[in-house]
Amino acid sequence: MTNLRTPQHAGPRAKIDVESYISGYFDGEGCFSVSISPRPGIRVGWEVRPSVSVSQNADRGQVIELVSEYFGCGSIRPDRSDYTIKWETRRLSDIASRVLPHFVEYRLLSNKQQDVDLLKSISQLMLAGAHRTRDGLLEIARLSSLMNPSGSRRYSLAQIEASARGEGIVCPTGKRWN
Amino acid sequence: MTNLRTPQHAGPRAKIDVESYISGYFDGEGCFSVSISPRPGIRVGWEVRPSVSVSQNADRGQVIELVSEYFGCGSIRPDRSDYTIKWETRRLSDIASRVLPHFVEYRLLSNKQQDVDLLKSISQLMLAGAHRTRDGLLEIARLSSLMNPSGSRRYSLAQIEASARGEGIVCPTGKRWN
Repeated sequence: MTNLRTPQHAGPRAKIDVESYISGYFDGEGCFSVSISPRPGIRVGWEVRPSVSVSQNADRGQVIELVSEYFGCGSIRPDRSDYTIKWETRRLSDIASRVLPHFVEYRLLSNKQQDVDLLKSISQLMLAGAHRTRDGLLEIARLSSLMNPSGSRRYSLAQIEASARGEGIVCPTGKRWN
Repeated sequence: MTNLRTPQHAGPRAKIDVESYISGYFDGEGCFSVSISPRPGIRVGWEVRPSVSVSQNADRGQVIELVSEYFGCGSIRPDRSDYTIKWETRRLSDIASRVLPHFVEYRLLSNKQQDVDLLKSISQLMLAGAHRTRDGLLEIARLSSLMNPSGSRRYSLAQIEASARGEGIVCPTGKRWN
């Protein structure tokens, strides 16, 4: 993406490979996640929402702007509670076609790459509509339970599985599948 | 530093420029700092300690190992309280000759580069012994007060300046200069 190497940037960035820099930045600060939440209006009772985001203190948010420009999608919003700004994209088509191909080509060097690979699998399932079927939802829930092992999770795989078995009491919406 | 591109790494890192990746990683997670603390055994009454460090969750600490290998100095220690590991170097000669030259060549793209530039100026002053004189210490204190604007500071520039004026009451050690 040589369009980012415009003359006004040529000085400080002279030796920087922007693609590798962005992967290094995401290895530290990026978040690849999939949230699965109860949603009564959806036939399977649960909504699947993928997300890729990165945050930083607002006073050194220049790389957040660069990320937004580089991927050409998502949006930046300030979090006034802690003086950070966050770039995030939740649109499946952008995640699948603009964001993930970068991290396939410029892979993360830590275990966080596992989150990238799992998000890629989930995105492919979603593009095929799997999240709208019970079996597809369960496969997505299983894959997403392997992501971000040190993070917190609002609904467990066990809750979603129990919900799929018709044990509606476990599903916060009370929704039951056939 | 092509020695890091050994055959076993060639696969996943094939397109990664390690130098740019490390700068991107430090732009997010790295810390360039100088602490100035009262120390009765030192003639000017204050000890100046530069530091470069980077932390990460232990379960994805691979880049911390890479950083240690890349710079060839510092040490890694676990912080069992929050399941992170931290690479840090506090040795002036290593900071000046091994770490800072990297960030001069592969500059950070955010305002954090200001911390790098200030640490470089302070390191040069320290290599010339300035931290052992009152005027040098004050210059170092002034420069370090401009670093990490969003971070906390144990002793303010005003406290160190007051101490230097002989207002020993402000210096926690009670030390007075001539």
